[in-house]
Amino acid sequence: MPADLSLNQNVINMDYAVRGPLYHKASELRKQGRTVIPCNIGNPQALGQTSVSFYRQVLSLLEYPPHINRERTLKGQIRPDIDSQEWIPDYILDFSEDFLAKMETGMGAYTDSKGPLFIREAVSRFIDKRDGVTPGNGVPSIPDHVFLTDGASEGIKCILELLIADENDGVMIPIPTYPLYSATIARLGGKQINYYPDEESGWTLTKDSLEESLSKARRDNVNVKAIVVINPANPTGAILDRKSILEIIEFAGKNGLAIFSDEVYQDNLYGSEFLSFAKALGDDKNIPLFSFHSASKGFYGECGHRGGYFEVRNPPGSQGSNPGFIDILFKQASVNLCSNTTGQALIYLLSSPPPEGSEPYDQFNREKQGILADLYEKAGMIKESFKEMDGVECFGKVGAMYLFPRFNTLPAGKTDFDYCMSLLEETGLTTVNGSGFGQKEGTHHLRIAFLPPKDTLEDVLPRWIEFHNNYVRG
Amino acid sequence: MPADLSLNQNVINMDYAVRGPLYHKASELRKQGRTVIPCNIGNPQALGQTSVSFYRQVLSLLEYPPHINRERTLKGQIRPDIDSQEWIPDYILDFSEDFLAKMETGMGAYTDSKGPLFIREAVSRFIDKRDGVTPGNGVPSIPDHVFLTDGASEGIKCILELLIADENDGVMIPIPTYPLYSATIARLGGKQINYYPDEESGWTLTKDSLEESLSKARRDNVNVKAIVVINPANPTGAILDRKSILEIIEFAGKNGLAIFSDEVYQDNLYGSEFLSFAKALGDDKNIPLFSFHSASKGFYGECGHRGGYFEVRNPPGSQGSNPGFIDILFKQASVNLCSNTTGQALIYLLSSPPPEGSEPYDQFNREKQGILADLYEKAGMIKESFKEMDGVECFGKVGAMYLFPRFNTLPAGKTDFDYCMSLLEETGLTTVNGSGFGQKEGTHHLRIAFLPPKDTLEDVLPRWIEFHNNYVRG
Repeated sequence: MPADLSLNQNVINMDYAVRGPLYHKASELRKQGRTVIPCNIGNPQALGQTSVSFYRQVLSLLEYPPHINRERTLKGQIRPDIDSQEWIPDYILDFSEDFLAKMETGMGAYTDSKGPLFIREAVSRFIDKRDGVTPGNGVPSIPDHVFLTDGASEGIKCILELLIADENDGVMIPIPTYPLYSATIARLGGKQINYYPDEESGWTLTKDSLEESLSKARRDNVNVKAIVVINPANPTGAILDRKSILEIIEFAGKNGLAIFSDEVYQDNLYGSEFLSFAKALGDDKNIPLFSFHSASKGFYGECGHRGGYFEVRNPPGSQGSNPGFIDILFKQASVNLCSNTTGQALIYLLSSPPPEGSEPYDQFNREKQGILADLYEKAGMIKESFKEMDGVECFGKVGAMYLFPRFNTLPAGKTDFDYCMSLLEETGLTTVNGSGFGQKEGTHHLRIAFLPPKDTLEDVLPRWIEFHNNYVRG
Repeated sequence: MPADLSLNQNVINMDYAVRGPLYHKASELRKQGRTVIPCNIGNPQALGQTSVSFYRQVLSLLEYPPHINRERTLKGQIRPDIDSQEWIPDYILDFSEDFLAKMETGMGAYTDSKGPLFIREAVSRFIDKRDGVTPGNGVPSIPDHVFLTDGASEGIKCILELLIADENDGVMIPIPTYPLYSATIARLGGKQINYYPDEESGWTLTKDSLEESLSKARRDNVNVKAIVVINPANPTGAILDRKSILEIIEFAGKNGLAIFSDEVYQDNLYGSEFLSFAKALGDDKNIPLFSFHSASKGFYGECGHRGGYFEVRNPPGSQGSNPGFIDILFKQASVNLCSNTTGQALIYLLSSPPPEGSEPYDQFNREKQGILADLYEKAGMIKESFKEMDGVECFGKVGAMYLFPRFNTLPAGKTDFDYCMSLLEETGLTTVNGSGFGQKEGTHHLRIAFLPPKDTLEDVLPRWIEFHNNYVRG
């Protein structure tokens, strides 16, 4: 008798536009030999962004420690009349040796399921430094409340899974949203509650609009547990202003919600100031806060290595209702054994940049500033070209790695998905349609990652402008 | 109004003994300065097993490609009167260069969500070679049905999640079992259906015992969808005989079940022959088979790098009931973006050992044989010491990294958990109690990983024997 192998409907139902039909079409075109420019995803090194030398030199030594001492020996052995090779600075040799001494069991062993304590301590120091916490001033990060994860995604899924206890549980997410949230909530069988940042005022937020979404959900008997904020935002690239952040905190406090603060783009602000939710929350002891960061974005862009962490403040257990919240998170992490050690090492590196005056500092800083300046310049080039496209507007400060222009006039019957598909077919430029992220009804957008090399942009932008104006003029 | 932040009861309910109270007690003792021998987990490099040089030399170059050419240059520059450094063989420089050429976007970019095609092709070649598939003989592996994952665990969770569609869906698992299975089924809210390999005949299986478990589950209205097999087994370390494998396949076919074949210990057979389920299944077109492997065990032992893959044969869609099964798996993988690239590279390395006659072959083979011989010898040392312990028996061929001795006489009122805790406190030896894996009612066991260095075993085994005989004699 054949068993019924029907599949989990929640998994079948979930959507994931970033690697949906446009991604598949792009793969197909590439197989046909066409040039495709993958701006559908924030994957900088796939578009030629170089890795940070300091990070990679350390990773290289961690994988093969005999080369730490060999490097020291070789430095003394090369004949002076031979061109100096680019030796690895002593600072980096010492740094790698020190890392391995603290790691104890090297890169090939499972670590503590939360990640090694010394890395979580470095993360806490990084957070405190970023937020200006000093002894007696501000609330210090607690290393035992930090978990290292395979990218930020894993941590987000883990906490959503813990909070969505039944089909009536809901989580508020911004629209447009990063589809990890909508997909995971769907997979867990929970309720997605939309809230709408105001596009024309630069994707800012008001308590009123949040209250409106919440009230509607509660009228529908949804038990709303948390609100997700992505800052800088994905897909819009917008940077949340201080006032919006404080309104969200007040709103969460008043309504007993936990906050998910997705801050993986915290280094992609291009001159704007970053205010973390941890800092804005201050000494509030009531609002559970889950903050996420990763090694995938910023100037480091090490997506493939899947390094991430999350930090918990005011774990729900501390209010007495859910004893042992951190212990339950630990148990969840244990089933996966541990996150990958290369990603862990990158999180340590991200938390421990070379100090001013150290041997690798100048190169590190030059690379960092160079990558960020380049990204900002490329965003500017794309924004400029919107001016030449009929009926295209783009709101908000430039942050993250994305622009999210609005199309005020599409031909009758055409959707932004149709637009993106035609754009891909005609120019090779791969973007994601706004509807893939959710958007206010009746609006049309696309998301473009501002990552391709400048000469690629110089080539494709005029072709996009031409495509666009032909498309909308019909 | 505070929201109700009650947590997911399925997550709270799940157990994970391998990192449970004994693990925490061991951490505590270590903090107190006590020497602890972590045999509670298959984590070889944490116990001094060295990494395979070939693998690590390649990983090191992949992280920092400028050193490929620097190595070539330096080889020609060292003065002949200087001791030759241990240069990286040209074969490895070429291998790394070739890998990066195929990888195209380096180690820092997200890859295809399934993993890069050239790695999946290497995996398929590896499977075919292992199973003796040649043109016209046997069923070749399909690269599009191979998915790279963060360790084998991720793939197992992904497929269980897809198959467990509601609370009436059940999966058969062997008792004792690796707790990832029981924990994940509990988390997904499905039904765990136990079946019992026969300990005294070396943990073999009969169709009758399988039918008995299935009939009971069906009487309880459970929709049994799949059967999990771990071979070589965790926690027992036993190697399944050919007859048992064929009986499982016949049983699955007759009852329309899918098979999960967890084969992560396929290189830990110590002279016994490995028969994969893929090979045993042959050209059967009806039984869906999910096979799992990883870079964590074998002689490579790269647990921390979290490299794994799974291969699907006869995806349920191919019988017409679930169209697009592979597409749905791809969507699931996409939400996670991709597995980590270092783990992916290790899977490529595992699939592409240096051929006989190549420059690194001798060292590679010496390391491989040395690690495996050492493991087998250590298993033998521990098994020998059981003979001196009152009422201890250990069944089955030696496989995987574990022994699972049975305690025929424990003092009244004592459990195997009590035993393991006392053993830890008195000797520092950390094991896991049999009840942490499930076991036949009324029996008592522990699992020990045979990984510590020989001199550690020489020190601790006499102390264990003494502890044991004192403990059981009361």
